[in-house]
Amino acid sequence: MSENLEEKSVSLEKYNSIAQQMVETALNERKGYEYLRELCEIGPRLSGSENSMIAINWAFEKMKSLGFENVWLQPVMVPHWERGDVQSCTILKPKKKLSILALGGSIATPKDGISAEVLEVQNFNELEKRKNEVSGKIVFFSRPLDQGQINTFTAYGGAVDQRVDGASKAAKYGAVAVVIRSITTKYDNVPHTGVMLYNDSIPKIPAAAIGYTDSDYLSSELRKNPHLKLNLKLNCKTLPDAQSFNVIGEIKGSESPNEIILVGGHFDSWDVGDGAHDNGAGCIQSMEVLDLIKRLNLKPKRTIRCVFFINEENGTRGAIEYAIYVDSTKQDHLAVIESDRGAFTPIGFYAETDSTEILNRLQSWLPILEKANIEWIRRGGSGTDIQKIKNAKLQLGYVPDDQRYMDFHHSANDVFEAVHPREFELGTASMAIMAYLLSEEGI
Amino acid sequence: MSENLEEKSVSLEKYNSIAQQMVETALNERKGYEYLRELCEIGPRLSGSENSMIAINWAFEKMKSLGFENVWLQPVMVPHWERGDVQSCTILKPKKKLSILALGGSIATPKDGISAEVLEVQNFNELEKRKNEVSGKIVFFSRPLDQGQINTFTAYGGAVDQRVDGASKAAKYGAVAVVIRSITTKYDNVPHTGVMLYNDSIPKIPAAAIGYTDSDYLSSELRKNPHLKLNLKLNCKTLPDAQSFNVIGEIKGSESPNEIILVGGHFDSWDVGDGAHDNGAGCIQSMEVLDLIKRLNLKPKRTIRCVFFINEENGTRGAIEYAIYVDSTKQDHLAVIESDRGAFTPIGFYAETDSTEILNRLQSWLPILEKANIEWIRRGGSGTDIQKIKNAKLQLGYVPDDQRYMDFHHSANDVFEAVHPREFELGTASMAIMAYLLSEEGI
Repeated sequence: MSENLEEKSVSLEKYNSIAQQMVETALNERKGYEYLRELCEIGPRLSGSENSMIAINWAFEKMKSLGFENVWLQPVMVPHWERGDVQSCTILKPKKKLSILALGGSIATPKDGISAEVLEVQNFNELEKRKNEVSGKIVFFSRPLDQGQINTFTAYGGAVDQRVDGASKAAKYGAVAVVIRSITTKYDNVPHTGVMLYNDSIPKIPAAAIGYTDSDYLSSELRKNPHLKLNLKLNCKTLPDAQSFNVIGEIKGSESPNEIILVGGHFDSWDVGDGAHDNGAGCIQSMEVLDLIKRLNLKPKRTIRCVFFINEENGTRGAIEYAIYVDSTKQDHLAVIESDRGAFTPIGFYAETDSTEILNRLQSWLPILEKANIEWIRRGGSGTDIQKIKNAKLQLGYVPDDQRYMDFHHSANDVFEAVHPREFELGTASMAIMAYLLSEEGI
Repeated sequence: MSENLEEKSVSLEKYNSIAQQMVETALNERKGYEYLRELCEIGPRLSGSENSMIAINWAFEKMKSLGFENVWLQPVMVPHWERGDVQSCTILKPKKKLSILALGGSIATPKDGISAEVLEVQNFNELEKRKNEVSGKIVFFSRPLDQGQINTFTAYGGAVDQRVDGASKAAKYGAVAVVIRSITTKYDNVPHTGVMLYNDSIPKIPAAAIGYTDSDYLSSELRKNPHLKLNLKLNCKTLPDAQSFNVIGEIKGSESPNEIILVGGHFDSWDVGDGAHDNGAGCIQSMEVLDLIKRLNLKPKRTIRCVFFINEENGTRGAIEYAIYVDSTKQDHLAVIESDRGAFTPIGFYAETDSTEILNRLQSWLPILEKANIEWIRRGGSGTDIQKIKNAKLQLGYVPDDQRYMDFHHSANDVFEAVHPREFELGTASMAIMAYLLSEEGI
């Protein structure tokens, strides 16, 4: 060991006991887990909804009650889409109602719905080849998420084009509506929603997701009767943009208060379930990072700031607004950390940085981060919200195990009870150790 | 890269596509998961029970139907303890029934139960200090598992002495019965059983585990009224040893059939829940290792053998019998792998070997094992059953994430639905890749 390395290793040693305390305190007290329970009791938090405002006010009061400094609500206008109260998809003969959810952003159908024959395709290539058959039909994109992928985010990425662009692609050839197989790892009948986007130069048609097992059913009925008709009824609507807010609080740095370490995640969720894993958990973990530092009476050198970004799911307006604000006020973000991959057992952090020096420095902290189960730090994508903060010197994405995430994602399955207290709290501890090391050691 | 290393790396490269196929096939087909469902439908499999024999016959027929070679039942006599149908623990005033399970191996109480005052202690040290207060009392060991530990097996190890030796320790000072707080990571009221042992030189007294939240309740009632009385009624009994069997099947090696790679786990479970994680899963994963190799039409050079050991929970008789058999028949066990830590997302393998050369060799396979999420191979304890096979050159324990395991362990929570298909199947794939590499490359 060279003298320099030895010095460094001695200087890092002091963090071992702090890291150990963070892990033990988080696991024993489960305070963040109880905050998450409170949040989930409010219900889902779709941007622009009344519920989202109740949750925003809850978060504002909670940060103040935990003694955070400079707690404020940053105003931002957000899209306001509502699911409405009519939502049905019925095979007309033999009559059978399918389990569905309108996709986020979809237009409504006429009041009596749209009845049409169905063209089932696996992907956009097949759609292209069969474009002459599309006109007047409801297109059914039935390609499942590829379960053979070990990483469920990769698998999700391989299937999500149908949901996001399916309506426009099909409308281009005259389709009257689109239904898709829910993008999920779970073989049940709970439909999964998510954002869809229209292309302004193409007619808008309604779009919905069908539960996995009902998608199988529809496929098998279509093999028996290719001319079967579906009736799709939706009365969702897009209202004018609504007033909303990011929620921000911090612990002021004792030595370099102008250098900021940000921890955060998006606070909005889809409008089914509790938005527990996606992404109540990421927000509450971020909030508990600061709370944990306070409970342990630590005085970080740099400012540690918690940001709940609104509207990641269907607009990213909160993150854009925050990024404009830090740019215009020339705030120095040394490092920004996002948690938006669910609250499962920690594995690692993805770092967005070109600097090998910074990556090596982070990796030299692994013996400390290991106490919270962090196995690795690798180059990779950080998070949708913090990627907007262009002036940040380092963007980090917290990475937990992902095997169960897509079972819950964007569905009524994503409830508080789906979050495990130890897995959640280890995530908090991982992020707290990382944030504290960044605050004390810099990059 | 030296020429040797380059050669080696090229020679290992051929395993990448096999490993990838194993992962994809396991995740896509979920066959082992369906075998586990069948097994769990039989119910729990306590050694000596009728159910255990139904399950043993199911396993024998299943291995044959999957085309395994040399499928046989290895006879072994096992302890035969029965819980009986009376099991209650009641605070007499104000009357309240507590949720309990007799500990495995406990004697019965008299028909009307045992009514006595309660002495609550945290550990054997406190018991020793208060030994003069013990006589005529029911001792309540109330120390919880330490949630602050990141490894739940370590936490379990720190609490289990109360369950295993509590009765003897307390009886030594004249206690009339023992109750313990359930050893669990879950704050619910489902009691967790497990083995307890008597010391032949000390009187035998009955012992039971109380649900976690009822343990809290009993503690708080004792603070209000230190003289409160409990009535404990159990009618469990130990019958004469029963005939049972290990279940064994294999794929004969194509080049070195006399060199054996063993994969296995214990087949018995406690008598509540389905014994899904503990250890139906470990057995079925082992069985699917061979099945997966057959489904992929691989012809392993060495023999790959699957063993379901009976009676790990309360005697280890199956493992002892198997070890005697391989010793007396001079069978060459190159490597033995056990799965008995639940069916969660894979992390690594613990290797029991003094040889740094063997450890390095195993670690050189990590780029292949990574495809099934294996992050590391470290020195550590392998498994209770395979540790009995003294002539094995290498003992390996499969290590999945452990955060949720103790929620289920030895309780009615340990049912099929608690096992996640992807987590289960990735475990199968991890073990299959390891077994196949050992078969083809040796150690």
